[in-house]
Amino acid sequence: LNNSRRLRFAILGSGRGSNAVALADACLAGEIAGTIVTVLSDVPAAGILERARERGIHADAFDPGPFRTKLADASEALVIRRLREARADYVLLAGFMRILRGEFLRAFSQRILNIHPSLLPSFPGLNAWQQALDHGVKITGCTVHVVNECIDGGPILGQAAVPVLDGDTAATLHSRIQKAEHGLYPSVVGALARGDISIEGRRARGFRAVPSIDFGP
Amino acid sequence: LNNSRRLRFAILGSGRGSNAVALADACLAGEIAGTIVTVLSDVPAAGILERARERGIHADAFDPGPFRTKLADASEALVIRRLREARADYVLLAGFMRILRGEFLRAFSQRILNIHPSLLPSFPGLNAWQQALDHGVKITGCTVHVVNECIDGGPILGQAAVPVLDGDTAATLHSRIQKAEHGLYPSVVGALARGDISIEGRRARGFRAVPSIDFGP
Repeated sequence: LNNSRRLRFAILGSGRGSNAVALADACLAGEIAGTIVTVLSDVPAAGILERARERGIHADAFDPGPFRTKLADASEALVIRRLREARADYVLLAGFMRILRGEFLRAFSQRILNIHPSLLPSFPGLNAWQQALDHGVKITGCTVHVVNECIDGGPILGQAAVPVLDGDTAATLHSRIQKAEHGLYPSVVGALARGDISIEGRRARGFRAVPSIDFGP
Repeated sequence: LNNSRRLRFAILGSGRGSNAVALADACLAGEIAGTIVTVLSDVPAAGILERARERGIHADAFDPGPFRTKLADASEALVIRRLREARADYVLLAGFMRILRGEFLRAFSQRILNIHPSLLPSFPGLNAWQQALDHGVKITGCTVHVVNECIDGGPILGQAAVPVLDGDTAATLHSRIQKAEHGLYPSVVGALARGDISIEGRRARGFRAVPSIDFGP
């Protein structure tokens, strides 16, 4: 991939779009040498579409088909076609709540990233902040990783640490992790767009982890 | 337990004893309101015994019996007897390389702590720093936890985060984690000795996690 030009990013999301906003704003601010070329959602009413349109970014919903946790074959083919039409170099998942399968992974092999609200490999799967509270960890965080066939298991590009505090509820911890996500995701994608990140096997180089906000004194 | 008096700690270890040194020095410096009353090792030549004796702490080896990863029944009974004779309130494992079984766990129920070189529940078991490198995480650390029947699985009292750097080898990462251990273990035991820590189910309160050294700018 030629990193001397601006990269073209597509975002897939199902929710409010706070990570999409962080990524889009970082592109506008020049912190990511790239452009968000389209935002697609399986949820027509998802805030992420509105947030994108407010910023002049093309945004569209698509019909995911009859399944709850994956896309129907036809839907997957449609999304792949749209991403190719948009000439997306990378697909950034931002709160996209469906599993992507083989055809999609092959179409954008090593070019799909996700952000997960824990320090993987701890707490893969849903509601990772609640899992962290239930397990009683003192430190959790968030992880940007390459998406492959293993759910939440692809090579890790960047992580940020977030403390769990004594008074935390699921809501307060989730909110603290999300703040860290909004810093981590743009900074990893920025490093990627600069060509700083190289991957060899499971080990990626070129991004230095940081402790997040709120560790306090 | 009456925390208004100084707690009595026993340490079990199989190696060089760097965590035992950190704990003993923190007791001497008054950072832990307690005393190391004995140091026991299953390895007669282990540095931990010499380090303890240098500090005027009673230290002794015991015969672990014929097994590689656990203690023989008679050895376990002997160690329990010695710890009771020493009137140990808590048993601190510091690089002790054998699994403690039911009788020992019952004799010091909720009173055995261990330090593990990862952010549990990631990377339980041996060579956790190598596991972290192999998995490609950007942040690992260390964990002080209560020892129960689940290996490296008991309630977590404290954790410290440590970055994995691009050039890390097993040796450099292990060394960075150990430095963090030498800060974390005394500070968790100090909080325990002050009576700050309370445990409810899996969730302990009273110790605030910190990012470790070396995260850099």
